[in-house]
Amino acid sequence: MARLIEVTDPEDPAVDDFRDLTTADRRPDRPGGRGLVIGEGRLVVERLLDSPYPLRGLLGERRRIDALSGVLEGLDVPAYVVEPDVLAKIVGFHLNRGVLAVADRPPETDPAWLIENSRRLAVLEGVVDHENLGAMFRNAAGLGLDGVLLGRGCSDPLYRRSVRVSMGHVLRVPFARLDDWPADLGLLEAAGFRVAALAPRSGAVPVAKADLSSGKVAVLLGSEGPGLSERALAAADLTVGIPMARGVDSLNVAASAAIVFHAMGEDLVD
Amino acid sequence: MARLIEVTDPEDPAVDDFRDLTTADRRPDRPGGRGLVIGEGRLVVERLLDSPYPLRGLLGERRRIDALSGVLEGLDVPAYVVEPDVLAKIVGFHLNRGVLAVADRPPETDPAWLIENSRRLAVLEGVVDHENLGAMFRNAAGLGLDGVLLGRGCSDPLYRRSVRVSMGHVLRVPFARLDDWPADLGLLEAAGFRVAALAPRSGAVPVAKADLSSGKVAVLLGSEGPGLSERALAAADLTVGIPMARGVDSLNVAASAAIVFHAMGEDLVD
Repeated sequence: MARLIEVTDPEDPAVDDFRDLTTADRRPDRPGGRGLVIGEGRLVVERLLDSPYPLRGLLGERRRIDALSGVLEGLDVPAYVVEPDVLAKIVGFHLNRGVLAVADRPPETDPAWLIENSRRLAVLEGVVDHENLGAMFRNAAGLGLDGVLLGRGCSDPLYRRSVRVSMGHVLRVPFARLDDWPADLGLLEAAGFRVAALAPRSGAVPVAKADLSSGKVAVLLGSEGPGLSERALAAADLTVGIPMARGVDSLNVAASAAIVFHAMGEDLVD
Repeated sequence: MARLIEVTDPEDPAVDDFRDLTTADRRPDRPGGRGLVIGEGRLVVERLLDSPYPLRGLLGERRRIDALSGVLEGLDVPAYVVEPDVLAKIVGFHLNRGVLAVADRPPETDPAWLIENSRRLAVLEGVVDHENLGAMFRNAAGLGLDGVLLGRGCSDPLYRRSVRVSMGHVLRVPFARLDDWPADLGLLEAAGFRVAALAPRSGAVPVAKADLSSGKVAVLLGSEGPGLSERALAAADLTVGIPMARGVDSLNVAASAAIVFHAMGEDLVD
């Protein structure tokens, strides 16, 4: 069982991992960032405990910690128990989910390993919005993708807000970074993947007609607004599009991803 | 041209429509709410100006108002020009989009009229989250639905955050309320619609196999969590499902909507 420790002083250094999250942990992946992975709320905390991420500890109101007692069995980490006002002072805002867990990052996944062990992949370029990134991981998990490759210009999927919006699925869907962009897309083609770029351009094959559910398929998605770079588009085997109503510019990128991921997974068993 | 009026006093009653938006306008549709429709940012303001909603006025920084001068031609409403700090004091928070417009609500649309004049409809039950609601309207616009029917327990789609997340499309996609729920679903069947309920249950027809793109189709969507009520499910002609990966509970409701709306609109011209 996790070691329950009551904390009454918000300045207690024992809870430094959770301190002032809106500023101290704004960019955990950057120099000066602590690299910690924070899960908020019961569901996400449970997924963090169930992940390979090395758990450091928990912090929460007593009833929230108690509700987790089943999954805290056998864990040798501290679980700091606090009153709601102390919790708010530690993290720096009112947290209505009432419980957090913190973990270290595991070693980064090797993209070659991920490509070797996957059949359906998403490849993202320039997705900076943490909420869109988290939503795309949730879609990838639900719709049966094997992993996500992060190309140039993507934000950190393990940032707190991304973890939350993904409902913790960013902790379950393997991801890896492609450093040499877009040259590393060649790794996919070498492994027998068909690379389909999603882009709103004339001549694009409608998603429903592009036969994305058979064979090894990687779908390349850009950010809302600028979309995919010309170099990334040129590296793809085909361009697919979502038929849109006249006069509407685009869908949200996570909504687009849901449509494409669904088309990739028609053989999923419910 | 709109009448440009400089405002330097944040307490000026001329800008009361825009005052203290986070609290005063929290529930514009409820008793005590003012019923005003607020658009934020250039894109949404342009869509509000382009809508049938009776415009009352604009408020913004000079460069933001100037950027709209093309669409302000021929309008006989006040455009209040303010410095950024005055704007923040009026609306009650820092608005980095820098410009707002306010309109009255038009008369509510008659659901019988909307049903009569549509071929593809979404019908929502219990969608309370304003961001999900806005995202669903954006998806409905992009994927070519003719309108949205609001069943029991839906929030106000004209709430500010919903308007913003919809990118203003809530102002373009017709919607109407069904008061007698779920009996009013009978209006759809009487008009020749096939009503497909989206629900994660065994026996559901996979969305891709349900032939949703032909004939008159209305898709019934519930909220995340509780999902559709048994009574609503019973009133549908068929139940459709999105094949999901094992161990994943559900998609976000707006992501689910995107997948279903896409399946309804395969004949859209890009």
